[in-house]
Amino acid sequence: MTTDVSKYRFNHTMYRIKDPKASLKFYSEALGMKVLDQHHNDDAKFSLYFVGYEDPASEGLVRLGRQGILELTHNHGTENDAAFSYNTGNGDVGGYGHIAITVDDLHAACDRLDKLGVKFIKRPEDGRMKHIAFVADPDGYRVEILENPQLKA
Amino acid sequence: MTTDVSKYRFNHTMYRIKDPKASLKFYSEALGMKVLDQHHNDDAKFSLYFVGYEDPASEGLVRLGRQGILELTHNHGTENDAAFSYNTGNGDVGGYGHIAITVDDLHAACDRLDKLGVKFIKRPEDGRMKHIAFVADPDGYRVEILENPQLKA
Repeated sequence: MTTDVSKYRFNHTMYRIKDPKASLKFYSEALGMKVLDQHHNDDAKFSLYFVGYEDPASEGLVRLGRQGILELTHNHGTENDAAFSYNTGNGDVGGYGHIAITVDDLHAACDRLDKLGVKFIKRPEDGRMKHIAFVADPDGYRVEILENPQLKA
Repeated sequence: MTTDVSKYRFNHTMYRIKDPKASLKFYSEALGMKVLDQHHNDDAKFSLYFVGYEDPASEGLVRLGRQGILELTHNHGTENDAAFSYNTGNGDVGGYGHIAITVDDLHAACDRLDKLGVKFIKRPEDGRMKHIAFVADPDGYRVEILENPQLKA
């Protein structure tokens, strides 16, 4: 058996979410991702939602051949426990940081997210780094917003 | 100002690492990623390493136009503190889960990782899910190994 590392791909990132209704609304309506696949296991009481962008680079690729997928894992019932929340990684002992979304126009994208009621952690004008923004997803996971200069060319 | 969500992309995932020497060895030698970019800030005492696969889908794209990048953040000095470790997300309060790498041949890829001394959390033959494996990166972050069936066709 042989393996060719040049064929390896970074397929997805997974984190756990408390409430899929809130998260799917955020990732689809606010961030513009599509639900590419989902899997529900009622015995083991969990659901998986695979979300991401439909980009030309992924045309003809099966889900496992793609890059840039976000897997949201929902353990059934957490959405009904008011006291339940996940450690989103950025506290005292946090290791996990954020995902980053690139957009065509940073300020227009932030205006749109603002109008949708998305919570900002850092607006472009806050602090020294004017070229980035951070918003929070419904669990509080950080999502960085960055402008892709190639789309401005 | 307008913004076109169909142009948005999931560019990268970031987590913090204790020791870049160990992590870069793991992500390049073991997982076959390339260092696509790096940024060192000696005043603020941190370094960023952007790693990922050179795939045909990314040809001609600037870094911010791509998907599937992993950003490793190193706060200088953590590598010299024996007691220091990051919460990798899968403990009692963990929200963050893992990244997943797709490979051409699961068993050949796992054999290769084994020979490189990579630590396995779950081998393909462990448990019920024979089609996946989990390895640990140097900080203990979980990396899922999945086979892309399209590469077998």
